[in-house]
Amino acid sequence: MPSEFDIIRQYFTSKEFRADVILGIGDDAAILNVPEQHELVQSVDTLVAGVHFPLETSPQDIAYKALAVNLSDMAAMGAEPAWFTLAISLPSVDEAWLKEFSESLSSLAKEYNVQLVGGDTTNGPLTISITINGFVATGKALTRHNAKVGDKVYVSGTLGDAALALAQWDDQCLLQKESLAYLRERLNRPTARIELGLLLRDYASSCIDVSDGLIADLGHITERSSVGARINFENIPRSKEFNLNLTDEALITPLILSGGDDYELCFTIPLKKQNEFEIAMKEKNIFVSCIGEIEKAPGVICIKDNKVIDIEEIGYQHFSN
Amino acid sequence: MPSEFDIIRQYFTSKEFRADVILGIGDDAAILNVPEQHELVQSVDTLVAGVHFPLETSPQDIAYKALAVNLSDMAAMGAEPAWFTLAISLPSVDEAWLKEFSESLSSLAKEYNVQLVGGDTTNGPLTISITINGFVATGKALTRHNAKVGDKVYVSGTLGDAALALAQWDDQCLLQKESLAYLRERLNRPTARIELGLLLRDYASSCIDVSDGLIADLGHITERSSVGARINFENIPRSKEFNLNLTDEALITPLILSGGDDYELCFTIPLKKQNEFEIAMKEKNIFVSCIGEIEKAPGVICIKDNKVIDIEEIGYQHFSN
Repeated sequence: MPSEFDIIRQYFTSKEFRADVILGIGDDAAILNVPEQHELVQSVDTLVAGVHFPLETSPQDIAYKALAVNLSDMAAMGAEPAWFTLAISLPSVDEAWLKEFSESLSSLAKEYNVQLVGGDTTNGPLTISITINGFVATGKALTRHNAKVGDKVYVSGTLGDAALALAQWDDQCLLQKESLAYLRERLNRPTARIELGLLLRDYASSCIDVSDGLIADLGHITERSSVGARINFENIPRSKEFNLNLTDEALITPLILSGGDDYELCFTIPLKKQNEFEIAMKEKNIFVSCIGEIEKAPGVICIKDNKVIDIEEIGYQHFSN
Repeated sequence: MPSEFDIIRQYFTSKEFRADVILGIGDDAAILNVPEQHELVQSVDTLVAGVHFPLETSPQDIAYKALAVNLSDMAAMGAEPAWFTLAISLPSVDEAWLKEFSESLSSLAKEYNVQLVGGDTTNGPLTISITINGFVATGKALTRHNAKVGDKVYVSGTLGDAALALAQWDDQCLLQKESLAYLRERLNRPTARIELGLLLRDYASSCIDVSDGLIADLGHITERSSVGARINFENIPRSKEFNLNLTDEALITPLILSGGDDYELCFTIPLKKQNEFEIAMKEKNIFVSCIGEIEKAPGVICIKDNKVIDIEEIGYQHFSN
């Protein structure tokens, strides 16, 4: 008789569709083929129910986000995602939940051409830990430590959407019905900017994904690169839906600067490549915004209405950690 | 001010000692170099407190076991272990516990020349999920699906020690004081048979590590290889400490056949390589035992006192799953 966890495992036996998976799930380990002259890029990200997403999040959204945030790490490295392992803790065996979760996971995996190659299921509070693998031509990966003074600071997409959706989760009436779906989608189904990450290998001097908030994540770049950055609040892109719902500047500022979970890319472009980069982005129809530049003085400074914003005073604590 | 989890992270910032780690912890992902003409071998294993180890297990032993069971997967594949990521859930920040856990993890990692290259720390019931990476010359990995009729079935070391230690955990007086330490060590600090796994690439037709119990794990080989196996109970090696403590055959049989957690290797050797293999093992001073052979009829049969043991009747449920 199959155990409860045998039943669970059947939901995570993925179809093999990548030729570089020599041996998939079903042995002591997977056997994988990294292309010659390429480096392996690997990262682990864990989502815990009630910490990284609200408890009432749907199984489809949980699966989507768990994989998307890992794909986003590949984007930030300029890596082509390839395979992942899944360690999942489940409080109980709920077959309807498992079906929805695994179908959503499988669907996103196929969309990004990444294959599940290993898994482990245990009993416990809902926790999803994914180790993602990708690869990149040797020496071409994007990192955090090569930003140089004078480089321009960019972000992709818009910021603050996910944080706004999260801040209003318990009080939906504060968001207009029309924009609620969009903002929730931004929170629950972040888009991993893989295409942009791959293109950035030819232009960017550094890159990170915005998961902890713009100031914190740009701060990781400046710290690792031993530089500083000055950004202009007015240049930070916001969505129409964000602007429609929020007009109080005291609320807007922390959401934009410290709200995490957007999973946009923040990156630096050397001045001499800026023109060429802007043209490439227009050709590819990828929305990016120049929000500032790298400076010598350490730290991240944000200018608003010609004044330096006191970052410490913002004090916005976002949901995840 | 560093957060609680910043404090935790400091315990898992490993020293970089492997030249093939191009970029370690501290970016969106690690960058790793798989040698040319080699395949990547990857696996994930999770340990949950109270499920995979008793709650009172020491932090040193928990760390040891969490990494050792993953190393054991590399051994079973004939892979050379190289790097691992760690996703850990902790119920609270206990610096003394963290220090002991991380020192033990780091010490075992160095012993096996494996480097921590990524981590994620979350708040929750104690759960340790490790994704291990190794590599093997292309096409040389050991798998479960190539056992052939007539191959000899072997195990390394002795079986049943970990299961005996676990079975007696709550009632220590049943174990002689002298053997308790040895048996507990077998449970808490299993030895990953890396050296043997590497040697087996030249001899074995299939291999698995004994984590779920001999019958179950040999069953994985026979099922994947579309064959069966017949083993002789009398040939299954037991430790002196096991035999000293247990004389009741009704108790011995399930522990030997269904007790998990020994993390010995079970493997098959083609008849024509058996002599050469036995000589190599003697030269290397590695203790292995021939316990049976592969047959055509599906399933695993165990003979004891010239009778087939009814596997279904054993019904021993081991602690882990």
